[in-house]
Amino acid sequence: MSRSIRLAVIPGDGIGQEVVAQGLKVLTAVLPQDVKLETQEYDLGARRWHATGETLPDAELESLKQHDAILLGAIGDPSVPSGVLERGLLLKLRFAFDHFVNLRPSKLFPNTTTPLAGRPDIDFVVVREGTEGPYTGNGGSLRTGTPAEVATEVSLNTAYGVERVVRDAYERANARPRKKLTLVHKNNVLVYAGHMWKNIFDKVGQEYPEVTTDYLHVDAATIFFVTQPERFDVIVTDNLFGDILTDLAAAVTGGIGLAASGNINPTGEFPSMFEPVHGSAPDIAGTGKADPTATVLSVALLLRHLGFAPQAARIEEAVAADLEARDGSPRSTDEIGDALAVRVAG
Amino acid sequence: MSRSIRLAVIPGDGIGQEVVAQGLKVLTAVLPQDVKLETQEYDLGARRWHATGETLPDAELESLKQHDAILLGAIGDPSVPSGVLERGLLLKLRFAFDHFVNLRPSKLFPNTTTPLAGRPDIDFVVVREGTEGPYTGNGGSLRTGTPAEVATEVSLNTAYGVERVVRDAYERANARPRKKLTLVHKNNVLVYAGHMWKNIFDKVGQEYPEVTTDYLHVDAATIFFVTQPERFDVIVTDNLFGDILTDLAAAVTGGIGLAASGNINPTGEFPSMFEPVHGSAPDIAGTGKADPTATVLSVALLLRHLGFAPQAARIEEAVAADLEARDGSPRSTDEIGDALAVRVAG
Ligand SMILES: CC(C)[C@H](C(=O)O)[C@@H](O)C(=O)O
Ligand SMILES: CC(C)[C@H](C(=O)O)[C@@H](O)C(=O)O
Repeated sequence: MSRSIRLAVIPGDGIGQEVVAQGLKVLTAVLPQDVKLETQEYDLGARRWHATGETLPDAELESLKQHDAILLGAIGDPSVPSGVLERGLLLKLRFAFDHFVNLRPSKLFPNTTTPLAGRPDIDFVVVREGTEGPYTGNGGSLRTGTPAEVATEVSLNTAYGVERVVRDAYERANARPRKKLTLVHKNNVLVYAGHMWKNIFDKVGQEYPEVTTDYLHVDAATIFFVTQPERFDVIVTDNLFGDILTDLAAAVTGGIGLAASGNINPTGEFPSMFEPVHGSAPDIAGTGKADPTATVLSVALLLRHLGFAPQAARIEEAVAADLEARDGSPRSTDEIGDALAVRVAG
Repeated sequence: MSRSIRLAVIPGDGIGQEVVAQGLKVLTAVLPQDVKLETQEYDLGARRWHATGETLPDAELESLKQHDAILLGAIGDPSVPSGVLERGLLLKLRFAFDHFVNLRPSKLFPNTTTPLAGRPDIDFVVVREGTEGPYTGNGGSLRTGTPAEVATEVSLNTAYGVERVVRDAYERANARPRKKLTLVHKNNVLVYAGHMWKNIFDKVGQEYPEVTTDYLHVDAATIFFVTQPERFDVIVTDNLFGDILTDLAAAVTGGIGLAASGNINPTGEFPSMFEPVHGSAPDIAGTGKADPTATVLSVALLLRHLGFAPQAARIEEAVAADLEARDGSPRSTDEIGDALAVRVAG
């Protein structure tokens, strides 16, 4: 366990700034005295793009690489054409730093609102592949803008890429009490990629005889997310299906304000990056209405990744206790951050 | 309005047989005396494939083409490798008959169960593109089964294909009281196809000044499906996103037992095909537990497509009344079919 953390911070756009400030507040409060936290802030996102036209210059990518981890707020603004910052910054980081495990836990905390009747018991984690599938930017358009236009998007999948993320998911399932792993794909239509995923899933499964496995088509999976979410323990899935399913998972567990994520490079070759699942929410930016809890929970994932498991657990317990103690009166971003900082320190 | 209907019937697998029988019962009951109904049954699906290795021979495709419409039960069985019947039969029909409008209405009927708390007011229709996107079978795998395997799936999108389905969706939105159309895609990542969809959506929209429009990324759309489904009126989307969203829509409106669909060729060049959204449910096949309502509602879509709007409305009213009158005691497939047949005739 390293006794110092060199943390890169990318607050980004909209509420990103506000929630990251609270994440850092809680991180500082939870760290043991003898752990040195060095943060370096990077000005990346919509403002920077408007000012300089840059999304992620090579020099900054190199500089980011020198850190133990990255904390990111949110990227995106309606003033920037759709795709520019996503492809040029967020996905560029995930791909450059080989974040092949996009980890997204979903838990229905006590005393939170779910749109589901009957409050099912929800506690699962999605292991979303992060470096392949339809996210590689492979595709193009011919005769753009004419009535004869043809546009393609190519989903690229490699046994190399699928096996490593599937193995990671088995490891996680094996370490949980229920030991259940569900593969989600669409192998009755996407037969090439789908069969490769399924074959690798079955093959790797032989090494984990204690893990119970299941397969669901993505369309059927969405049904179970709302009718029977308690059936899930660990889910492994492709980049795009994981994107869709984790927003739905966030919605059924009380909203995007609580959903944390880690873009993890398990080999440690590159820094992993932690960010709330939510976006920059420009409509509420600056109003103090943003809930920093998702960012604080992302900090917990960050700590666990860096070997500070007790501190990660302290944050998660603090969040659960904080939600439990809520009386329904609205609290500002800052107030929630303060309350959590007090709890983790106490 | 034609005074005869030449209907091709593909009961298919599992509960397909049972629900189609009820669909035909209600169809017969609702049709005016002077309308001649000629049905021809086709033995296609898992049984046929096991017996002969055939999924959809050319001669049968030709023969199907001679009909005014097709009623399909369900296709698929665990004994058949995933993809064989889907690609070789179901999707082959959708593509051969150019079913570019895959119409899937979602309505929360009274006295039905929804997993959502608070019973939101749900009444929207998804216009799913049916002949392009990741469903074209374009892709492949290299070094299959080895650790060096690469598998691709290509999403093909044409301005021709997108414009016609977008236009159809605007027409439908324009004909509804709320006149609202939402495009769902993922144009911040799938930038080639996504931008083409969005540009065409905006361009065609200029011809429909009364239609209010909206755009959502597919991940965000799943959130609104569970937190605010009442915001939707008509949705237009790509083949794969439509597949995922309509299963979720079925789940929030009381289940796949009530979800109808039409694979429509609006030009009338080829027969359109109507089928419940649910699958063959081999686990309950033969038990009399299958709910034929989705098939009966698909018959209503079929009738409206063939110009029998009053009869279609009679079926829809009968279903609403039947659900309203339910007392919770279980009814068999046959009993539900009988009850609906009595209502539409009465
Ligand atoms: C902003 C977007 C590129 C991103 C994604 O699609 O991965 C987001 O939706 C997410 O889930 O982190
Ligand atoms: C069975 C399968 C090929 C099909 C699809 O993906 O379109 C089904 O899920 C549907 O929605 O009709």
